[in-house]
Amino acid sequence: MTLRAHPLTAAAFAPFGDVLETAGDPDKIINQGLCGRFHDRAALDFGPRGRAGISLFSAQPRALPYRLELVERHPEGSQAFIPMHQNPWLVITAQAGEMPDAPPGAVHAFLAAPGQAINFHRGTWHGVLTPLHGPGLFAVIDRIGDTANLEEHWLAEPLLVTCP
Amino acid sequence: MTLRAHPLTAAAFAPFGDVLETAGDPDKIINQGLCGRFHDRAALDFGPRGRAGISLFSAQPRALPYRLELVERHPEGSQAFIPMHQNPWLVITAQAGEMPDAPPGAVHAFLAAPGQAINFHRGTWHGVLTPLHGPGLFAVIDRIGDTANLEEHWLAEPLLVTCP
Repeated sequence: MTLRAHPLTAAAFAPFGDVLETAGDPDKIINQGLCGRFHDRAALDFGPRGRAGISLFSAQPRALPYRLELVERHPEGSQAFIPMHQNPWLVITAQAGEMPDAPPGAVHAFLAAPGQAINFHRGTWHGVLTPLHGPGLFAVIDRIGDTANLEEHWLAEPLLVTCP
Repeated sequence: MTLRAHPLTAAAFAPFGDVLETAGDPDKIINQGLCGRFHDRAALDFGPRGRAGISLFSAQPRALPYRLELVERHPEGSQAFIPMHQNPWLVITAQAGEMPDAPPGAVHAFLAAPGQAINFHRGTWHGVLTPLHGPGLFAVIDRIGDTANLEEHWLAEPLLVTCP
């Protein structure tokens, strides 16, 4: 079974989270006219007992087609991935199940263009971080807390993800 | 008056904030061994009435030597700059004054290497975002709130910042 990645757009990604990009006009011009601020673009949610943290992820670049076997979710917080590079990368997500404890629904794949970051909303099923080029370096803004914040779901059948 | 930028290191930058980089071993290996997590590397502080937000800054690249005329600080929150590219960039900061309301002390300049991000601690005097190459694209994690959060200080004499 194969799954074709589509270009990442805010509209297509809206059910899963936020696309952070400099499309359109900035919300504010700062620094004597030399900088545009695209303000507060992610719906951060770290739950009642968590707090925001910044971590760095260094991930091994993946080859295409990418074999997807696992999706995961973080029930206690949103998770933003900010590429510290200008290469495209793969974003995989899955629809929520019909009930909170149900397995995830249909899987979707997106190809993020250079300059695009994303924020998965709290509890959204997604694939692990999948850069396509080295260095696979990302800043991650997610929940720091004491309780478990990871659920995993192995697919009944692996999916082969391809890019246009 | 000229000021020479030094390579950015965690030790030299410690009085001003955090350097986020993948130096040394990761705190945790995740994703079936394919990703290193450098965990919770920034001292975030958004005050009692603020919250964390992610914004994007698109700044015009600056030429060297860079003429520094102004430093600023955010009394109500920390501010992290995460380059969404692999180019070096300039980080300028200034020591605190002797009293909370005093003008800033000595100015310092650092050249951030590819893969280095920084987090200015709450209230730290610093220069505006100064990329040296295009695209001057950064993710910024700072305080979202309703009150004023900016103080500016114009230097008595401009400084010309050079790089090694």
